[in-house]
Amino acid sequence: MKKGRLEAFSDGVFAIIITIMVLDLRVPVGDNIKDLTPVVPVLFSYILSFVYIGIYWNNHHHMIYAVDRINGAVLWANLHLLFWLSLIPFVTAWMGENRFTRWPVVLYGLVLIMNAIAYTILCWLLIKEGGPGSRLAVALGKDWKGKLSLVIYVLAVVLAFYRAWLGIGLYAVVTIIWFIPDRRIEKILSSEGSAREEP
Amino acid sequence: MKKGRLEAFSDGVFAIIITIMVLDLRVPVGDNIKDLTPVVPVLFSYILSFVYIGIYWNNHHHMIYAVDRINGAVLWANLHLLFWLSLIPFVTAWMGENRFTRWPVVLYGLVLIMNAIAYTILCWLLIKEGGPGSRLAVALGKDWKGKLSLVIYVLAVVLAFYRAWLGIGLYAVVTIIWFIPDRRIEKILSSEGSAREEP
Amino acid sequence: MKKGRLEAFSDGVFAIIITIMVLDLRVPVGDNIKDLTPVVPVLFSYILSFVYIGIYWNNHHHMIYAVDRINGAVLWANLHLLFWLSLIPFVTAWMGENRFTRWPVVLYGLVLIMNAIAYTILCWLLIKEGGPGSRLAVALGKDWKGKLSLVIYVLAVVLAFYRAWLGIGLYAVVTIIWFIPDRRIEKILSSEGSAREEP
Amino acid sequence: MKKGRLEAFSDGVFAIIITIMVLDLRVPVGDNIKDLTPVVPVLFSYILSFVYIGIYWNNHHHMIYAVDRINGAVLWANLHLLFWLSLIPFVTAWMGENRFTRWPVVLYGLVLIMNAIAYTILCWLLIKEGGPGSRLAVALGKDWKGKLSLVIYVLAVVLAFYRAWLGIGLYAVVTIIWFIPDRRIEKILSSEGSAREEP
Repeated sequence: MKKGRLEAFSDGVFAIIITIMVLDLRVPVGDNIKDLTPVVPVLFSYILSFVYIGIYWNNHHHMIYAVDRINGAVLWANLHLLFWLSLIPFVTAWMGENRFTRWPVVLYGLVLIMNAIAYTILCWLLIKEGGPGSRLAVALGKDWKGKLSLVIYVLAVVLAFYRAWLGIGLYAVVTIIWFIPDRRIEKILSSEGSAREEP
Repeated sequence: MKKGRLEAFSDGVFAIIITIMVLDLRVPVGDNIKDLTPVVPVLFSYILSFVYIGIYWNNHHHMIYAVDRINGAVLWANLHLLFWLSLIPFVTAWMGENRFTRWPVVLYGLVLIMNAIAYTILCWLLIKEGGPGSRLAVALGKDWKGKLSLVIYVLAVVLAFYRAWLGIGLYAVVTIIWFIPDRRIEKILSSEGSAREEP
Repeated sequence: MKKGRLEAFSDGVFAIIITIMVLDLRVPVGDNIKDLTPVVPVLFSYILSFVYIGIYWNNHHHMIYAVDRINGAVLWANLHLLFWLSLIPFVTAWMGENRFTRWPVVLYGLVLIMNAIAYTILCWLLIKEGGPGSRLAVALGKDWKGKLSLVIYVLAVVLAFYRAWLGIGLYAVVTIIWFIPDRRIEKILSSEGSAREEP
Repeated sequence: MKKGRLEAFSDGVFAIIITIMVLDLRVPVGDNIKDLTPVVPVLFSYILSFVYIGIYWNNHHHMIYAVDRINGAVLWANLHLLFWLSLIPFVTAWMGENRFTRWPVVLYGLVLIMNAIAYTILCWLLIKEGGPGSRLAVALGKDWKGKLSLVIYVLAVVLAFYRAWLGIGLYAVVTIIWFIPDRRIEKILSSEGSAREEP
């Protein structure tokens, strides 16, 4: 089964999810710079989610690029990931409009956890299809970034019950983990092909 | 006539339909977990429709993949299918916001029926273009899943007049029919090519 | 200059325009079948516009398919067409929500006229690039459908000032003109290649 | 790393950004031509932004077309550009709904400046990847249009504090700079390949 339409459909959904969040930046009533004040937390929430969806798109791009074949289970695992990604605009708006209070921050973290799980399932199925010696399996290796992210998410959700800003801080830490290129892995990847890591 | 742009345009419409439904998950006013209560039925409605559109996308993917040529009538039959799919967000929101009462559940079923009919017309035209010995014709065979789905939809609409939850239950049953891979057909498909079935 | 991204971008815009119109089908407050009454004219308006955008997409598909090269002027003429197409959701909603009264019907027609003009400009530029002997120039021929449509639009706008339903009726007539395949032209096209006509 | 999915994803985001702005053209309540009056400034604001996003898409098209390879940094620089482009619908609506008063016009200009900076960063990274002798580097040359635009934007933002219409006028001047083809550069490009300029 060819992967072209899976990529095209996924790119479409990614593009829409990352863009419709901007619809939650409600145009303020007044025309003074001060009238933008209530938009600021929503904008901050939007930036965080934009980066997250950007990371997922980048990783998805690399992962699918590294595989040769897909199957029916992969199509469904991909849809499952897209479902959880599609909930990000909702939790982003709830968190931003309530200025990062406890429950919205907790729910945001739970959706991030579900996304991480859905992404991991998709990885497993692709590696199962490709085999342990496949480019994707080698490139991912032990996937410490994925595992570390999940641990931080869980910690963030727990801490957010006490201090919401701790949750937010940890969500931001995860984005930094994915931004910083991993030099050691990069070398392996440059010869092996790349998946889930920036070369 | 090439099928590339038909796929690209359809993928775009599928991606938008599956994603804009999330806009109907209105952000609640309060920031407490209890404030999410009115969102729950809308979310449930969204999940059902997400799965349906996912099934249609999967089947559409397989069907177009199995054909070599398209024609003007196919372009219109495809637009006809996309029209009925585009009504799913509307009936999804109406059903979710009214917590699955009679008329919204009935209308949801009627839209599913129209989608099934539109899909069948598209199938016919593609098989007519490809001929009875084409990959698509062989792969579809008697299309018992398609026929069974249509019967269940009609039954669901009728039953929903008396008990709305019976309609919902049957809509969910149809999604399960399409999830479970058909082992016997799979074997045929793995040698013949695949359309409308997961290999 | 390659035409791939022009097609991809245009397909994206077409897909979004044809789909976001459904957002104007506002979910009614009640859950009775009677509560759908105000939605009916909006739905009718949506169907008309869905068919129009479908026709434009079909014609655009054929037209670009028939050309080999594009240039900077074509990119802008294409954006100009997409601009006028993007106003269709607005006039569709205004017309539907006001149940096809005079001014909304007139404005709808004016937008259709601007779309027809924008499409014709795009045609001219593509034929100019390809030359008078190009596939597109031959396939279009005298383009009587395009010219007739423009005449009917103007007539419809004028008549709509007196009786709005006359305007609507004529807009529907134009869609029928484009639906009915032109047998004589079809024969020419089947050997010459096709643009703006269904083969 | 292949550039196909970068183009597909970017085209999707461009298509959505340019189209969702039309959602801010709120359907007026009445059905008289006079009821459209409040829509006029929003429409004017929409046209300005449509042209800007059209220019960015055209330039992005040429730029990516002229490069052979991309890397991880390019993916992020591209997302950074798409982020600032995604804020255009917000500032467009704020500016249109307030009929081009001071602060909205200033903020619009600041977003244009950020877009110009993000585009320049993307250029730099692509040229760094391709080398000083690459097609893109030659085609861009000294990039006087880009530099001139930035100067005008800054001037426009400063002047908008005193007279908002001066800012708007200068934003319109920049679009004209990009519309008018540069004959001297065109000649170079027709042999060298093209990026950021219309051939």
